[in-house]
Amino acid sequence: MLRGNAIVGQSGGPTSAINATLAGVINGAFAAHEEKIIDTLYGMRNGIEGFLKEDFVNLFELFSNKDDIETLAKTPAAALGSCRKKLKSIEADRETYDRIFEIFEKHNIRYFFYIGGNDSMDTVSKLSLYAKEKNYDIRVVGVPKTIDNDLMATDHTPGFASAAKFVATTMKELNRDISVYNLKSVTIVEVMGRDAGWLTAASAIPAITGDAPDLIYLPETPFDIDKFIEDVEAKTKIRPAIIVAVSEGIKLADGTYVASAKNGGTDAFGHPQLSGTAKVLENIVKERIGCKVRSIELSLVQRCAGHVMSYVDYTESLRIGAEAVNSALKGESGVMMTFVRSNGDEYSVEVKSADISKIANAVRTVPREYINEDGNGISEACIKHLAPLIVGEVEQKYVNGLPLHFVI
Amino acid sequence: MLRGNAIVGQSGGPTSAINATLAGVINGAFAAHEEKIIDTLYGMRNGIEGFLKEDFVNLFELFSNKDDIETLAKTPAAALGSCRKKLKSIEADRETYDRIFEIFEKHNIRYFFYIGGNDSMDTVSKLSLYAKEKNYDIRVVGVPKTIDNDLMATDHTPGFASAAKFVATTMKELNRDISVYNLKSVTIVEVMGRDAGWLTAASAIPAITGDAPDLIYLPETPFDIDKFIEDVEAKTKIRPAIIVAVSEGIKLADGTYVASAKNGGTDAFGHPQLSGTAKVLENIVKERIGCKVRSIELSLVQRCAGHVMSYVDYTESLRIGAEAVNSALKGESGVMMTFVRSNGDEYSVEVKSADISKIANAVRTVPREYINEDGNGISEACIKHLAPLIVGEVEQKYVNGLPLHFVI
Repeated sequence: MLRGNAIVGQSGGPTSAINATLAGVINGAFAAHEEKIIDTLYGMRNGIEGFLKEDFVNLFELFSNKDDIETLAKTPAAALGSCRKKLKSIEADRETYDRIFEIFEKHNIRYFFYIGGNDSMDTVSKLSLYAKEKNYDIRVVGVPKTIDNDLMATDHTPGFASAAKFVATTMKELNRDISVYNLKSVTIVEVMGRDAGWLTAASAIPAITGDAPDLIYLPETPFDIDKFIEDVEAKTKIRPAIIVAVSEGIKLADGTYVASAKNGGTDAFGHPQLSGTAKVLENIVKERIGCKVRSIELSLVQRCAGHVMSYVDYTESLRIGAEAVNSALKGESGVMMTFVRSNGDEYSVEVKSADISKIANAVRTVPREYINEDGNGISEACIKHLAPLIVGEVEQKYVNGLPLHFVI
Repeated sequence: MLRGNAIVGQSGGPTSAINATLAGVINGAFAAHEEKIIDTLYGMRNGIEGFLKEDFVNLFELFSNKDDIETLAKTPAAALGSCRKKLKSIEADRETYDRIFEIFEKHNIRYFFYIGGNDSMDTVSKLSLYAKEKNYDIRVVGVPKTIDNDLMATDHTPGFASAAKFVATTMKELNRDISVYNLKSVTIVEVMGRDAGWLTAASAIPAITGDAPDLIYLPETPFDIDKFIEDVEAKTKIRPAIIVAVSEGIKLADGTYVASAKNGGTDAFGHPQLSGTAKVLENIVKERIGCKVRSIELSLVQRCAGHVMSYVDYTESLRIGAEAVNSALKGESGVMMTFVRSNGDEYSVEVKSADISKIANAVRTVPREYINEDGNGISEACIKHLAPLIVGEVEQKYVNGLPLHFVI
């Protein structure tokens, strides 16, 4: 067994479950500590950015109380801090890589865990390659997280399902709200997702009680303004008040983002204006149809709504973190942990690992058969695929009416 | 005892607790039915608008299963539907009043319960006056609800605390989210409240764990753009990433709404643009400070987030509904039910009633002593006043990962 210290970092946009994965890594490392393999687990602050400054925190000391690990697991966003730094290629920036490996040696770091999305997996890939080149014995393992659910080689990503549960719950609640008036109205809800529409697709999960949005548009199919207005007119004939869900990243046939729609105008204070996708569509409906219309951006709220975590996501995120440690102990490096869904009616996943070179820098989008023929809704197969992920609630600790968080 | 039928309606903007109040009225009416006072309880759809069309539903038949009353109480938005109709004065529209009383007589309606905000209390006031004039024996009782918390004569209004719990929870979660990057950034969150800043003030409740917004602006004090920029610069020197909470209704010293700020511009599709308050401020920060800045409108989500109801709000809303029936049974009419907070350290309220003429058409704003001297934050007295209202969680029933709702 390779004995030494371990380090873990978080990178990319926060999610409600990225700390559950961190908690899983801590649990796994404590187990390896008992077996005298991992001496100490460090956390790097602000991902690789903080690593380069040796901005470390000793997680074994910090989490001597096991209750704190549970509170951490239920705290949204990245407790270690995050960064958006992407390493340059080894050829272009050998200096930075040498610095990283100097730090590895200095602290006898033999296990490197990095929890993140696409850019973070790129970091894992490069570090594992350089370790081979340098012949430095270290296990570099990536653990996925992203609300976008767009990583290759895994059935879904930790963090996605909790965001999906918030989006689906909110759509159901909004459907109660917008239905109270006997009035033609259009409510346009913008969901995160620049290139992949998974999270917007999750808005369709409440379909079973008739609470899915009336129209759903993903970035995977081209968006047509005239067709959109026709769709809205047709749906408001069925019921007066309707909900439309759109991904922030929907594009016109020529590839331009609907949101990129610049307007030459300035506001009353003389400042230039830029609009979100839903706002642009609100203005179009206002002018072309003229009924009551409102746009809602779920914005950051959808990715940090820890109070409505999915239990499936919570337990899977803990599990994949612990399995990352096991994978490294078995000698794996240059891999990302993945979920492989079992066949059969009952939902379950196995945690496996996949070669990181097959994953980094590629995007998994919603397949065409998960979108209806008209490109304005979600297929039943898609709902069947997504629905099991949001099942179950996490018992949160509340103090004075507010969820308890663990801050590192 | 006045024997006959009762009717209940909901009016104005929905809240997460307006159905809990409806459930309370149903419970109270069932009790009066046992005592052979109320024969049947009807619900009017879409408030007074549906009443005029005799669009009634028999609530005793609908809620023969008591479990359904509990599900109703936990369902957000107005299950009976709502309206924005305000009755004209009796002198100006005697015809409508005569029509209403014809319907009362036709269905032997002797109890009229109306759950709503300011405009709804105006309806209660007018109907009770006309009943006296016509000498028709009916008890007309108003039950407050509004997330704005701006009704006179009551310590607070049902529905406010659940919206406040969502706002406070979201502020705390957003504080986790925005703190992950080591980067100067400003996140501006817009909270509902046109004339009264109560709900925005509730964003300060997480202060106890350091999770209140760094700056809070209410409509009660004039908003100054230059001062705002100074405030932001000062706060970002203390910590790089800050949160600013603003009421949608903040106004400049000359009384114009910051949001009314029209811009001459049009978007790429040629449609005129209008901005929300937070968006206007986002553009100002972008230009004057130039750091990363984002605006978030909590929009309808804050008033229908039934999955995060306050337990205090839930139980009080049920109770005030049942007490409305008791008040009517005791012979009261032309009143609105109110909460009177007990003195002493432990939070508790009594349910009383107040003369409706003192309530309708007046607005209760946040007193100056609840705002800090600089007008950019909330005083401790205000937090102490608001904090007990969001305490406790409501156990929701979930089916397939989504909250169960009752739809009438």
